[in-house]
Amino acid sequence: MKKGVMRPGHIQIRVLDMDEALKHYRDVMGLIEVDRQGDKAFLKAWTEVDKYSIILREADEAGMDFFSFKVVDEATLDSLRQDLINYGLQVTDKPAGDLPDCGRRVQFDLPTGHTIELFATKEQTGKWGVSNRNPEAWPLKLSGMRINRFDHCLLYGDDIDGVLDIFENVLGFKLAEEAVEPDGNKIALFLTCSMKEHDIAFIRQPMKDKFHHVSFILDSWDDVLKAADIISMTDTPIDIGPTRHGLTHGETIYFFDPSGNRNEVFCGGSYTYPDHPTITWDAEQLGKAVFYHARELNERFLTVVT
Amino acid sequence: MKKGVMRPGHIQIRVLDMDEALKHYRDVMGLIEVDRQGDKAFLKAWTEVDKYSIILREADEAGMDFFSFKVVDEATLDSLRQDLINYGLQVTDKPAGDLPDCGRRVQFDLPTGHTIELFATKEQTGKWGVSNRNPEAWPLKLSGMRINRFDHCLLYGDDIDGVLDIFENVLGFKLAEEAVEPDGNKIALFLTCSMKEHDIAFIRQPMKDKFHHVSFILDSWDDVLKAADIISMTDTPIDIGPTRHGLTHGETIYFFDPSGNRNEVFCGGSYTYPDHPTITWDAEQLGKAVFYHARELNERFLTVVT
Amino acid sequence: MKKGVMRPGHIQIRVLDMDEALKHYRDVMGLIEVDRQGDKAFLKAWTEVDKYSIILREADEAGMDFFSFKVVDEATLDSLRQDLINYGLQVTDKPAGDLPDCGRRVQFDLPTGHTIELFATKEQTGKWGVSNRNPEAWPLKLSGMRINRFDHCLLYGDDIDGVLDIFENVLGFKLAEEAVEPDGNKIALFLTCSMKEHDIAFIRQPMKDKFHHVSFILDSWDDVLKAADIISMTDTPIDIGPTRHGLTHGETIYFFDPSGNRNEVFCGGSYTYPDHPTITWDAEQLGKAVFYHARELNERFLTVVT
Amino acid sequence: MKKGVMRPGHIQIRVLDMDEALKHYRDVMGLIEVDRQGDKAFLKAWTEVDKYSIILREADEAGMDFFSFKVVDEATLDSLRQDLINYGLQVTDKPAGDLPDCGRRVQFDLPTGHTIELFATKEQTGKWGVSNRNPEAWPLKLSGMRINRFDHCLLYGDDIDGVLDIFENVLGFKLAEEAVEPDGNKIALFLTCSMKEHDIAFIRQPMKDKFHHVSFILDSWDDVLKAADIISMTDTPIDIGPTRHGLTHGETIYFFDPSGNRNEVFCGGSYTYPDHPTITWDAEQLGKAVFYHARELNERFLTVVT
Repeated sequence: MKKGVMRPGHIQIRVLDMDEALKHYRDVMGLIEVDRQGDKAFLKAWTEVDKYSIILREADEAGMDFFSFKVVDEATLDSLRQDLINYGLQVTDKPAGDLPDCGRRVQFDLPTGHTIELFATKEQTGKWGVSNRNPEAWPLKLSGMRINRFDHCLLYGDDIDGVLDIFENVLGFKLAEEAVEPDGNKIALFLTCSMKEHDIAFIRQPMKDKFHHVSFILDSWDDVLKAADIISMTDTPIDIGPTRHGLTHGETIYFFDPSGNRNEVFCGGSYTYPDHPTITWDAEQLGKAVFYHARELNERFLTVVT
Repeated sequence: MKKGVMRPGHIQIRVLDMDEALKHYRDVMGLIEVDRQGDKAFLKAWTEVDKYSIILREADEAGMDFFSFKVVDEATLDSLRQDLINYGLQVTDKPAGDLPDCGRRVQFDLPTGHTIELFATKEQTGKWGVSNRNPEAWPLKLSGMRINRFDHCLLYGDDIDGVLDIFENVLGFKLAEEAVEPDGNKIALFLTCSMKEHDIAFIRQPMKDKFHHVSFILDSWDDVLKAADIISMTDTPIDIGPTRHGLTHGETIYFFDPSGNRNEVFCGGSYTYPDHPTITWDAEQLGKAVFYHARELNERFLTVVT
Repeated sequence: MKKGVMRPGHIQIRVLDMDEALKHYRDVMGLIEVDRQGDKAFLKAWTEVDKYSIILREADEAGMDFFSFKVVDEATLDSLRQDLINYGLQVTDKPAGDLPDCGRRVQFDLPTGHTIELFATKEQTGKWGVSNRNPEAWPLKLSGMRINRFDHCLLYGDDIDGVLDIFENVLGFKLAEEAVEPDGNKIALFLTCSMKEHDIAFIRQPMKDKFHHVSFILDSWDDVLKAADIISMTDTPIDIGPTRHGLTHGETIYFFDPSGNRNEVFCGGSYTYPDHPTITWDAEQLGKAVFYHARELNERFLTVVT
Repeated sequence: MKKGVMRPGHIQIRVLDMDEALKHYRDVMGLIEVDRQGDKAFLKAWTEVDKYSIILREADEAGMDFFSFKVVDEATLDSLRQDLINYGLQVTDKPAGDLPDCGRRVQFDLPTGHTIELFATKEQTGKWGVSNRNPEAWPLKLSGMRINRFDHCLLYGDDIDGVLDIFENVLGFKLAEEAVEPDGNKIALFLTCSMKEHDIAFIRQPMKDKFHHVSFILDSWDDVLKAADIISMTDTPIDIGPTRHGLTHGETIYFFDPSGNRNEVFCGGSYTYPDHPTITWDAEQLGKAVFYHARELNERFLTVVT
């Protein structure tokens, strides 16, 4: 949080059919639906203090509209906005209320074509189902996969060197982990503004603005198993897992929403501090870096991208 | 245990190189080596009271020599021997001491070509590392995958109807689970002489005397994860997992020893009693029956058989 | 199952207020209510194939009315009935239908004053929420503590030597574990008719017909934690745990129903076979034998007995 | 990390007998001994990148000498040093090398009498047993309790309002959780410079400079169970657990080193961000706040303090 970017604040995901999408995100995964306006639904996971973190937008094509970070305060938002402009990026100002119960947002596009936002203010409705006073360990009414928190996303794009420069030098992120080719060319970036091994990640692919997955953290490896069971019981398409990643060492499952957007639920994994060296994975070990147990990529890893 | 067959007593597995095999079964998996004689090594898991359960024999070809059940006493061994003969099977009597510290064994071949044994007596050295008096929860020196117990094997062969008849009607086993084709033809048998969902299992394939895997039970899903990690750390070839089976609902990993014999470590799973109906899986659901999360067989499931 | 006794079939527990009791056993613990007749409610856990296993009876005093074992068939029930009579016990025949959907029961009293029953027939409604054909891993609608199965009870009484003689020599049980005083006097019996370390247990106390706890098995140590959390969230009185027992090595919590009857949920633990020696705990280690981590009894262990 | 304090860097603990202490911290708990100099031993947990985090000093009395935070760089150390002086605190400068392989340290005393340090530089030997390049998930040689990381300490003292003022206003910490009396008087402070619910904690007691416990984080609730088992197997005095805390919601065991210093191993628990409101526990719920399952303090919680 060197420059005041706190955490992933929300993501807007395009879904082909809102009813089907809600059956998935709300009923199967167990996210809490907190609002519905026009073509959008707003959801959150129970430990989040802000009103929402997941925006589903009904559209003709799956994928991600934008990914937003919450910064510590409005003054920080001003200064980061100016830093982005000084860097040469074009920013778009979205006024307060453009998203419900959310303050103004500063949007800009990465060299990979992805739209990123910063904002400082959102209505705080508090953790769902527990109080700030003598809180219980978790809400008794928790259902589905018992998702703890919206965690990060992984994006595919071409100019990830340009992305790295912006995240490191403008937004104050750290490169926690990377995958590199023998010539030093980076092919994967795991970027953090916190102790988490990734708040956002990129893999180099010859494409613009592609969305690999949105990820949610669970409490335990036992919850990963139960999530995998729920995936099977509900005929939800699975991609891979349960398994562990090499990169970050988190324990994971990949699966798909009804529109073809990839989701991840995971637990555990490494942590980082500013003085920790970047962890490097060699490209020839990419199979193990991504799927630590199978030690090879599955075909879908590179081909199903919305 | 309707007719006095208690449990899997030992299995003799052929390995191509004993040193490599011991690195795998003893050092990586953590089984305890208790004896070595000639071309054979003898191992056990820590909760087993008998001296050994795994016999590795150095040979030119991988696979299984025989699978043996321990029966409650010598009188039961006599009567089961006679029942086998009455059924029309040819039995071979192996004298006490033919296997070290093991009483006489009654061998016979199944219609699938597999050699099965019965025996009643083996030296009881007790659980490894804990006493029968005020026992600790587990031995502090436990290492590797922390394997609890030798559990079962899965065999491939043609005439599994013949196999079922012998196990049910001569040996007093129960068909706990099965997979069936639309015409009722059985293609998988999970047979038990206990509360366990399988003490031995068969899958119908047009081949004789093939060995699919030997299986060991772990204490927890957490130990399954650590076993998968150890598999990766030691460059042990993995087949699939961590995942859950549909059949038996156990939580599992398949991997290979250096000779190509498939191993399983698993935990959990269902239980059965004599009055429980047989659980049936339809052939068209075989993918889910075998690998509950992926819901499809991997190619190796049918092709790598030693 | 040497003489055909399969498993604990049901227990009848006295509760002071049925509504409060159902809030506890059904809503907090998550047992399934399957019937209500007169002053009784009938419940089961989801993996049980018989219609019910827990009978709650509204009464003026908490405690246990009787504990019943299911035997393999009616012929076995006949022969065990005769064996009990031959042993000198007075049996009471309860006709089919005396308990709803249950066949005839043979009741007798132990020297400790506890009433035990045998029966062979009860309506089989199958596992709750899953099919016998292509069964899912668990029912999606499972709630509360996710209890897998009714498992055993622990009773307090004086003449446990007399109890042991009946269970071993008439009913074919095995003494899996015991606690003994220096003079060899047995003070705790863990008796099994299966691979489980106990289907019923007794502790010697100078009293007649006392009920210490009824126990239910969970799938995992993670479920033990969640059960403990639920106990706190619902203001359910806890006794001790999460912890491990020395005896049986199961991982456990003790708590109380609204009438003061002690309940246990646990997971894991050892297994036994007929050729396993009895595990012995010395009386001076009773603290560790009962509560393996604290290594001392809490005061309630001996004083709260209904 | 508002003002550049990163994390707990090391703690110096007094032990009565170094050999006994090392048997405990190294052999039982599994910390890695990295150096021994004079009357001190230096240890670390495997994921830590700095050379050591635990200093054991042989002395006549148990307790804590000092607790040190690592800051992001030397310039930050300079400015925090000046801030402490400006606040009116007396600082003691310890030169580089005063602790082996550690840069200069700035020491000061809290109003509770505890000695706190800041430092920016320590030799980085990297994670133990894994590489920064294609790292395995954990070191195969990991032993004992499989401790992941030195995490925090809890201290007892009188003027915790004074402590809070320094941590919040000079060092940039956040009050993540607190316990308060009905009049608003704070009796417990859980202070963080990160996403962790506590990097250091205080409980108000009418005493100076008392040490309640040093805490280490484990990977999972399963590791908490195994740690509790190890505590019993090695006759290590236990205080309480396994259980969960209300404050922070971590899953925990308290136990004692041979000198009477209390240790904690725990896993899980909540996280915090700068915009999260402080979690408040009411004094009348202190039992549940500390031991969530038992919902009452044990006697030792207030009496055994070194």
